[in-house]
Amino acid sequence: MSTDAELVNANNPAVDEYVIGVDYGTLSGRALVVRVSDGAELGSAVHEYANAVIERALPSSGASLPSDWALQDPDDYREVLRRAVPEAVRVAGVPADQVIGIGVDFTACTVLPTLADGTPLCELPAFRDRPHAYVKLWKHHSAQPHADRVNALAHERNEPWIGRYGGKISSEWEYAKGLQLLEEDPEIYHRADRWIEATDWITWQMTGTETRNACTAGYKGILQDGARPSDDYLTALNPDFVDFTAKIEHPISALGDRAGGLTKEAAAWTGLPEGIAVCVGNVDAHVTAPAVKAVEPGRMVAIMGTSTCHVVSGPGGGAPADVAGMCGVVDGGIIAGLWGYEAGQSGVGDIFAWFVNGFVGPELHAAAIERGLSIHELLTEQAEAQPVGGHGLVALDWQSGNRSVLVDHHLSGVIFGLTLATEPHEVYRSLLEATAFGTRIIVEALAAGGVEVTEFIAAGGLTRNAFLMQMYSDVLRCPVSLAGSEQAPALGTAIHAAVAAGAYPDVPSAAHAMGSLVSGAYRPDPDRAAAYDLLFAEYLTLHDHFGRGGNDVLHRLREIKAGTWKWAL
Amino acid sequence: MSTDAELVNANNPAVDEYVIGVDYGTLSGRALVVRVSDGAELGSAVHEYANAVIERALPSSGASLPSDWALQDPDDYREVLRRAVPEAVRVAGVPADQVIGIGVDFTACTVLPTLADGTPLCELPAFRDRPHAYVKLWKHHSAQPHADRVNALAHERNEPWIGRYGGKISSEWEYAKGLQLLEEDPEIYHRADRWIEATDWITWQMTGTETRNACTAGYKGILQDGARPSDDYLTALNPDFVDFTAKIEHPISALGDRAGGLTKEAAAWTGLPEGIAVCVGNVDAHVTAPAVKAVEPGRMVAIMGTSTCHVVSGPGGGAPADVAGMCGVVDGGIIAGLWGYEAGQSGVGDIFAWFVNGFVGPELHAAAIERGLSIHELLTEQAEAQPVGGHGLVALDWQSGNRSVLVDHHLSGVIFGLTLATEPHEVYRSLLEATAFGTRIIVEALAAGGVEVTEFIAAGGLTRNAFLMQMYSDVLRCPVSLAGSEQAPALGTAIHAAVAAGAYPDVPSAAHAMGSLVSGAYRPDPDRAAAYDLLFAEYLTLHDHFGRGGNDVLHRLREIKAGTWKWAL
Repeated sequence: MSTDAELVNANNPAVDEYVIGVDYGTLSGRALVVRVSDGAELGSAVHEYANAVIERALPSSGASLPSDWALQDPDDYREVLRRAVPEAVRVAGVPADQVIGIGVDFTACTVLPTLADGTPLCELPAFRDRPHAYVKLWKHHSAQPHADRVNALAHERNEPWIGRYGGKISSEWEYAKGLQLLEEDPEIYHRADRWIEATDWITWQMTGTETRNACTAGYKGILQDGARPSDDYLTALNPDFVDFTAKIEHPISALGDRAGGLTKEAAAWTGLPEGIAVCVGNVDAHVTAPAVKAVEPGRMVAIMGTSTCHVVSGPGGGAPADVAGMCGVVDGGIIAGLWGYEAGQSGVGDIFAWFVNGFVGPELHAAAIERGLSIHELLTEQAEAQPVGGHGLVALDWQSGNRSVLVDHHLSGVIFGLTLATEPHEVYRSLLEATAFGTRIIVEALAAGGVEVTEFIAAGGLTRNAFLMQMYSDVLRCPVSLAGSEQAPALGTAIHAAVAAGAYPDVPSAAHAMGSLVSGAYRPDPDRAAAYDLLFAEYLTLHDHFGRGGNDVLHRLREIKAGTWKWAL
Repeated sequence: MSTDAELVNANNPAVDEYVIGVDYGTLSGRALVVRVSDGAELGSAVHEYANAVIERALPSSGASLPSDWALQDPDDYREVLRRAVPEAVRVAGVPADQVIGIGVDFTACTVLPTLADGTPLCELPAFRDRPHAYVKLWKHHSAQPHADRVNALAHERNEPWIGRYGGKISSEWEYAKGLQLLEEDPEIYHRADRWIEATDWITWQMTGTETRNACTAGYKGILQDGARPSDDYLTALNPDFVDFTAKIEHPISALGDRAGGLTKEAAAWTGLPEGIAVCVGNVDAHVTAPAVKAVEPGRMVAIMGTSTCHVVSGPGGGAPADVAGMCGVVDGGIIAGLWGYEAGQSGVGDIFAWFVNGFVGPELHAAAIERGLSIHELLTEQAEAQPVGGHGLVALDWQSGNRSVLVDHHLSGVIFGLTLATEPHEVYRSLLEATAFGTRIIVEALAAGGVEVTEFIAAGGLTRNAFLMQMYSDVLRCPVSLAGSEQAPALGTAIHAAVAAGAYPDVPSAAHAMGSLVSGAYRPDPDRAAAYDLLFAEYLTLHDHFGRGGNDVLHRLREIKAGTWKWAL
């Protein structure tokens, strides 16, 4: 169904060549073997991390961890190379000596302290029982107080970079986690020669050479216009933090660059030829773009699951478009040479799950079981039978706050228009619609800044809901295409590996040859689009009223709730 | 627990005397035998109407009825006198010859066409199969287009009476139903000498004399300052409607007046002595006031069930207080000599039922069953364990529109503050609170007009929820008393019968002797009241924003919904 011209592999090899993309997720790593000429996926294997997510106690000592901690053991990452890579090659049935490149993508910001040679501090016997010596996973959220200080000081000082991140640095990112390390375990902090994203660290393990990729440096490491936060700023945060940038600074590699050749040791782990190309590290969401051929400006990729991450490139060169409320705007952050825009909706699938798990009565659950449907499928079927607006409802999808474009995690959800005749499938539909409207707000903000979204490419678990996909197409008045691969991040990484190996001149040409896209799977229906416009107009007014200070009731309700713990009642 | 002094029966009879109150509900009539000296309830009996509510087809012909019709057969009302009254006397074990008075209260506006002698038109063989010849029950709602014209014309002409009804005459009331009769079955209309409330009609059946009571004449018959809508106004509605007022006009009797003596025929039906006092008719909600001793200005009675009806008297004489959004303001409408104010909340218990029936998941239903609780009881228990405001929610209780003070049936409900951690009992509590806030709006409107509510007396099914009652006390910062009788309307009517029989000089003195009240059952807690004030402040702002035109989204959502039936989708 693709309408893109399939470019011919520039090298046109007589013998088939292969590349391997390794996608590191939260609980496991997946290796995927891909044919260089056409992107065919020939085999994959998954290895689950032995230590999974370390949230309650360190495995080494059993010492318990505070709440909101989430650590990992870096050797689990090496084990993916030792186990999943050779297994994937075996499953694919290809000769290992025809594999010409490999690369990784990772969750982010997932970050660890190492010595100058890349040795993780948690692997030093002296630090084996020190929580701060381990990898801090993306969802380690205990650095929030530190992030709050990072943000408050940035606004106080009008730091130029803060606007590139929607006015807010996340507690998940490098500087917030680094400040927490300094202030909670200064010995580890000072011993850490390097503070490095896991994606760059595992790449270093494979090549013996440190590299830093443009994506995490920009989106997680506050690298903007070639500069990091100033020494003055860092000193004002904490005088001892002034040397932090030195722990992350390094020449930046463009995405698709060759990080180095596979070392003898890594060749032994993986069973692959020594010296083959290893591409620089990347992030799972961003690497999905080339997997779905979204390598030109305006082709937005939305990875839709419990939350949605939107990545889209805009024209390169000069200054980025002035788009408010992005999670990050990074030069070459998705595709080298283009400005990469990342936005997000903090609640999507988890809002639907919250509703069906708590707020749907027993009769409907029983009916779903009887018909062999999930409760989501039953409610979708019922909702689909109703015309647009037939429920008389509109909702604000802020049950988990609003990431883009309001960047306000203290907002909460609202449902308008309830009557005694309102049924669960109608509320369910209003919640689906609210997330589509939330996406439209992001798309319109990009357009207002000069980044016109011409195609919406959906990936992730929610793409299985055809009604939802059609709704997004109608609401956005834009074709919705679907990722053609079930393992889009690993495929995207394989594409980068092929470029690093020289099989293609650049990521866009490799993506067109190897990427996989069901183009225009859904197209907007003009009548439904017109009806959704009426609801969106209401959503927009309410979004701005409750999200931009017209009535701060949602903030006050949160404060009242927080206050109750102080009251004697 | 009463703090009211119990007045001594003015007649202080040597032999006990009794009165009977007959309460006509939607599906049955209840007779209650009450001792005159102290209001003791000695026995009661219920008779269910054979024809119940005639909604689908006429029993006589089987001819089907249009939607929104609700008729009754007036002989069912006589049958209550024939069956329930003697049975109640038998159960009470009192000698029938010691019964000195009887009276009725009724649903309203429940109205029928009769000949000049009181014969219902549906009892004429020629009209037996004509739907318009029957009683139109209060919930007959197909006269809405006629009510819309009544209202539009009243506002166009600035009719002085429209303000006494919150700017809106209900489709349930005498003029709307009368106009429907004229325009849909003019033969019946012209044959009808009288158009009479069922409460006055059954009283006429008992006495042989037509009377009209001040309560329905004012609240349902647009009698204000001694006048009805003008001939000019009626002619403008429909030239043939100009004679309508003649069908309802009659000298008005004050509540507690003697309508006449029990006829020989009615004595035979009931087994009571011929000639005993029959008081003038009354309405179930309004007659509850004396049953709970609410006979002085400022003591509000709320009959709380699926909806809530509020009745409260204010100072008498002169003009009424200027209170916006009342359902009706009537001179002597509740207690003779005082201005009677009626307000309402169109959705209360039905909102709670709507939520628990549709929006509470299977686990909670199973937990309630396991513990032998109703789902309402379980959710209440969970809600009660949380401090005020601990849910972070505020709701607008407009799932069934808003009767007072906005008088807008096209509003709908809203829930603010939802998060992924919000649980069903928290939403449930926010709905309970919203109804309490809605009551506070009414109480504050009365106070602003000069009718200070000093005590809130609750009657009806919702009084069984102690948590809800305490919440109303806290939110209103006012003591909540409870009706002492389970059959408050019948008791209130018995009180009127005692006055008509001359046992007491007036309704207030009879009410203090015979009424039953658990005074100050709930008293406000200052800390909780202060916390509720914070939530009420949010409710008030949202109430005014969405209810008074700040954002008419709730109306537009209804229009969008209505429009979907016209769209091809």
